[in-house]
Amino acid sequence: MEIAPIQPVDLAKAYRLLNHGPTVLVSAHHGGTDNVMAAAWACPLDFDPPKVTLVLDKATATRTLVEGSGVFALQVPTRAQASLTRGVGGESLADAPDKLARHGVELFRMDGHVPPLVAGCAAWLSCRVIPEPHNQQTYDLFIGEVVAAWADARVFKDGHWMYEVADPAWRSLHHVAGGHFYAIGEPVSG
Amino acid sequence: MEIAPIQPVDLAKAYRLLNHGPTVLVSAHHGGTDNVMAAAWACPLDFDPPKVTLVLDKATATRTLVEGSGVFALQVPTRAQASLTRGVGGESLADAPDKLARHGVELFRMDGHVPPLVAGCAAWLSCRVIPEPHNQQTYDLFIGEVVAAWADARVFKDGHWMYEVADPAWRSLHHVAGGHFYAIGEPVSG
Repeated sequence: MEIAPIQPVDLAKAYRLLNHGPTVLVSAHHGGTDNVMAAAWACPLDFDPPKVTLVLDKATATRTLVEGSGVFALQVPTRAQASLTRGVGGESLADAPDKLARHGVELFRMDGHVPPLVAGCAAWLSCRVIPEPHNQQTYDLFIGEVVAAWADARVFKDGHWMYEVADPAWRSLHHVAGGHFYAIGEPVSG
Repeated sequence: MEIAPIQPVDLAKAYRLLNHGPTVLVSAHHGGTDNVMAAAWACPLDFDPPKVTLVLDKATATRTLVEGSGVFALQVPTRAQASLTRGVGGESLADAPDKLARHGVELFRMDGHVPPLVAGCAAWLSCRVIPEPHNQQTYDLFIGEVVAAWADARVFKDGHWMYEVADPAWRSLHHVAGGHFYAIGEPVSG
């Protein structure tokens, strides 16, 4: 397999990985178990240190891993991963123990970070949960601090998305409903 | 002016107006003052009743109006409104009292709702703040319940975005940084 040109992203610019509102994959590891789910409800919350909000339903297996380990990763899947994204979003590890293999999810790890990362994504954010039990119980709302971020230099470079010049297979996915997405489109200056 | 074909959106489907991660305009009214700002950090939080999260920096004039009135509206601006969106996002009412007029913002109102709505947008969500003082103070994070929603039937109909058939001028904006956006692109099925 080709070694992807994964490069660190300056934490001060990590918000840009999520600022355009892509659907993300959430990954976590605890007690020997890895899992990955899809989430459209993830959003930047702060610049410095970068923080994010993430909604994790109580029914998800990933939530149990996040609560157990206190850490998770967000990653930005690509148009080429639309089927994978729909697949891991549509079933729970509780019902489908082989879901990662069946949907072609290949995991890798970064030294010093517990959550597994999904190969082939455009960007990755390693996060630690800032415990807010009221938000978590009442709203299923988790707050995370981004402790490290990386991107594939073929689509995000020097702090900027390169969608207009990268292969369209790299474009981010924006879920509407029922496994139907829009890919991100053309640049517009205000 | 042409009367826009604005239609109510079923509250159970209101999350779809924001699910693809568009940059929004936030509008509010209090004490005789209307204001509108841009925000990339707004996100669905729940389906039923629909809720949203919204980050409002303490420096914004809009936050004062939201805190005073307990209500706000989110709206989805279009590619045709990129300049307006950048304009109202780039300056504060505190420094530029004429900012709405100068950026061509035309407001209208819906009966029974306090926040003004921005004409020409693709969709509107009228929200009441669910008070969470700790989130508001610590994270600038507001939670709102969506109490009514509307969309322009030329781009959102029967619960679905119609970007692939509507005029491209209707496409949503997804802010990256510095007034540079991507428009939403083509449909992708997972």
